[in-house]
Amino acid sequence: MDLQYAFELIGTFVFAISGALAIREKEHDLFGAGFTGFITAIGGGTLRDILLDAYPLVWIGDIHVLYAILAGILAAFVFPNLLSKLRRTFFLFDTIGIGFFTVLGVEKALSLGVRPEIAAIMGMFSAVMGGVIRDTLTNEIPILFRKEIYASACLVGAIFYATMEYLGLERNYNLLISMSLIIAIRLIAMKYKLSLPRLD
Amino acid sequence: MDLQYAFELIGTFVFAISGALAIREKEHDLFGAGFTGFITAIGGGTLRDILLDAYPLVWIGDIHVLYAILAGILAAFVFPNLLSKLRRTFFLFDTIGIGFFTVLGVEKALSLGVRPEIAAIMGMFSAVMGGVIRDTLTNEIPILFRKEIYASACLVGAIFYATMEYLGLERNYNLLISMSLIIAIRLIAMKYKLSLPRLD
Amino acid sequence: MDLQYAFELIGTFVFAISGALAIREKEHDLFGAGFTGFITAIGGGTLRDILLDAYPLVWIGDIHVLYAILAGILAAFVFPNLLSKLRRTFFLFDTIGIGFFTVLGVEKALSLGVRPEIAAIMGMFSAVMGGVIRDTLTNEIPILFRKEIYASACLVGAIFYATMEYLGLERNYNLLISMSLIIAIRLIAMKYKLSLPRLD
Repeated sequence: MDLQYAFELIGTFVFAISGALAIREKEHDLFGAGFTGFITAIGGGTLRDILLDAYPLVWIGDIHVLYAILAGILAAFVFPNLLSKLRRTFFLFDTIGIGFFTVLGVEKALSLGVRPEIAAIMGMFSAVMGGVIRDTLTNEIPILFRKEIYASACLVGAIFYATMEYLGLERNYNLLISMSLIIAIRLIAMKYKLSLPRLD
Repeated sequence: MDLQYAFELIGTFVFAISGALAIREKEHDLFGAGFTGFITAIGGGTLRDILLDAYPLVWIGDIHVLYAILAGILAAFVFPNLLSKLRRTFFLFDTIGIGFFTVLGVEKALSLGVRPEIAAIMGMFSAVMGGVIRDTLTNEIPILFRKEIYASACLVGAIFYATMEYLGLERNYNLLISMSLIIAIRLIAMKYKLSLPRLD
Repeated sequence: MDLQYAFELIGTFVFAISGALAIREKEHDLFGAGFTGFITAIGGGTLRDILLDAYPLVWIGDIHVLYAILAGILAAFVFPNLLSKLRRTFFLFDTIGIGFFTVLGVEKALSLGVRPEIAAIMGMFSAVMGGVIRDTLTNEIPILFRKEIYASACLVGAIFYATMEYLGLERNYNLLISMSLIIAIRLIAMKYKLSLPRLD
């Protein structure tokens, strides 16, 4: 459990960095970058918890989450060039991050007593809606709507986790397998440039 | 009451179809279309219930609502051309739908004990905010801001319903008359290309 | 306290006017202008209270707030040219308004028992998120992301208020000093065209 908590803080830290750097090519100032890092890091979990009436929100109830975000923003401010060059590393971190937060989101929703179908949606929301809100605020088309296997990988992993949990698979195995599934789908889709068809 | 519940599910189904088809001309894939259908169907009621602290949210507490949405998305995936040709039919369904959901939204808000003025706003939100959130996420100017009698028709009907309820009109009559008022305003405005003036 | 309540209603009134006039150059009709005025006036406080689970929302629990908003929208409808000419006056009112609502937002969050760091963020949200939501809905880049000292002034004042409150400064002094700080930062930044650096 302590290890998991450490990963949650690290994941939040990484999301804040990538959020702050996401608007680097734009006309935004440091404050805008910090705000974007903040929204990216908290958006998904916040939306999930508001939809599920699960208060206090994680970052409001646990100040360490806010500190992890501020540390991420600070890192982006101090080492923007260094961190921007680590694009491949970040892609990997982000992929691990969405896998991790998807599965934790499903678990939290299930623990609040909602049905598995709803929990799967909440898991996907946890992972991707921070980026969606960030993109909406900064007038970008959210990645979710672009032709890329991203949120759909999270949804597949979330459905898998909820199903396995229902079937009684031991929690830690389930967590690792479901995360790996999300990560594998995303990496394979990137490597072979796979995408879902359009609606027509 | 059973009839009303059936209409609610049908209305949700139709909103999900029109939401999924709404982004058809864009670069979105199937996942994006499904997501858009989902948001369109749940957005208005979800916003209303979050504002009113009315939990669980309808689609989280009643799994049939989610199934109606998934059925709508599936229908849009399987018969996109057929359904797109039914544009006039959909316009009619959408008009009936916003009338119906406006009135139910006012009723729900009143049943939660808020004042009629607030309930009227909540009714309008129920009907139109799903589309507003969808348009915002996909970088469109929401229909609400375009020169068309749409949300304003809902607001007029919502105010009418709240007033008649206050004056003691029997509920089912009130529901039918208020819905008809919204539908009539929208149809007449479309036929005669009526619009509200601009602010200048 | 009565004086403070009067200022809250006046501030809401002014925010509704400036929100309704904000989209004047666009293709929006009167309904869109009214909607924009409404969102601008309630957005920040509503977001704060949803994040903090503080129900009923201010404008739902106190009908005078809604009346202040409707009065502001009506004023914008009746005197658009006159009010648009008062741009400088409005800039001043807006600056006083964000100072005032920031500080009250911090105070409310503290009274709900959250930590000072969180309360400072909530104060800033109270003041600026109405405009952010408005800009997002109307497809503008929110002012927060433009190179202007706006939300950052609120954040500085909010942190100052939370710190002084923690250190035991008498509430009314703290309120006046923190508000003045926000107003001073914004006015000085405008006069000398100060801005934060970009991230690069």
